[in-house]
Amino acid sequence: MDMERLQKQFEFILEMDKEKQIMRRTHIHGYSRNESDAEHAWHMALMTMLLSEYSNEPIDVLHTIEMLIVHDLVEVDAGDTYAYDAKGNETKAQREQAAADRIYGLLPEDQGKRLRALWDEFEESKTPEAKFAHVMDNIQPMMLNAANDGKDWKSNSVRLKQILKRNEITPDGSHELWDFARENFINPHIEKGNILE
Amino acid sequence: MDMERLQKQFEFILEMDKEKQIMRRTHIHGYSRNESDAEHAWHMALMTMLLSEYSNEPIDVLHTIEMLIVHDLVEVDAGDTYAYDAKGNETKAQREQAAADRIYGLLPEDQGKRLRALWDEFEESKTPEAKFAHVMDNIQPMMLNAANDGKDWKSNSVRLKQILKRNEITPDGSHELWDFARENFINPHIEKGNILE
Repeated sequence: MDMERLQKQFEFILEMDKEKQIMRRTHIHGYSRNESDAEHAWHMALMTMLLSEYSNEPIDVLHTIEMLIVHDLVEVDAGDTYAYDAKGNETKAQREQAAADRIYGLLPEDQGKRLRALWDEFEESKTPEAKFAHVMDNIQPMMLNAANDGKDWKSNSVRLKQILKRNEITPDGSHELWDFARENFINPHIEKGNILE
Repeated sequence: MDMERLQKQFEFILEMDKEKQIMRRTHIHGYSRNESDAEHAWHMALMTMLLSEYSNEPIDVLHTIEMLIVHDLVEVDAGDTYAYDAKGNETKAQREQAAADRIYGLLPEDQGKRLRALWDEFEESKTPEAKFAHVMDNIQPMMLNAANDGKDWKSNSVRLKQILKRNEITPDGSHELWDFARENFINPHIEKGNILE
């Protein structure tokens, strides 16, 4: 057994424990606290297991889940950037590239390359798997915001225009899930005034 | 599109958000707080992506990750039972069966059956995938306990005998990972007196 390889793998796995301390703006159902990046990733993996049948194109489920499991690891260094934080999003790409260099560099070279390729694929959002992963990433917090009476939209004064811009790519992954989310999660909260028009 | 099916799927997905509120005895690295079941499952999915090469037998990685993503869902109703809580473990099977009936019953029938079969497979621990999933489930908290200076072992007065009993099946999934864990996570904490002999 290659002990150096296994040591590196466990050092990486322990370092990534920090993803449990990266808190998102989104609150868990009941609004008692924010959810962590790790919880968000787990929730999306479960969603993919159940909802992959609604992808516009056939997808490799393992590939999609792996992408979702690792897509936020760079936030261990770069922090979470809120979807509707314009300033934060200006510097996001640069901060995350530096984070990727360090984080994926901790692993044995073959695995570091593989995980970084998964992250790049997610960011580029061109493959059927990456498109579906973005559907999960956009709809999971939308479902929680709706279940929490729109409090996260309200407290951040989120406008419909911003939601639609962020979700421009959502129908590319799944028309059906986007239609469902629009009707069940977004529209009722426009009516209630929780999402600003 | 079958709207009733999609409604059921989203009701289940939202209900399972509660797994973020099921707290384990294990603390995250740094000991600032306990980890949630959802975080534990995410961490093991990441570990499986990186460590499947050490399985004694070849495994289907997607099948293993899916098992790990769902294996604690019953705890949403049944609560987390600490590995070294003898009384709690007496009633665990019964509590979890009742939980499984309710929880998997929320889903469309085909998916409820599929997820329950994954959970049963994990509990039975006979397939190569289930054996490897148990390696992850046993080694992940061991790694955190060791990184946290053995505090969780100490505060629960855990004995080596108990750890070895719980890990009887670990070498069936991966001799290499068990040897590594024994040498790197357990032995140093016997020497320090954090694990009682």
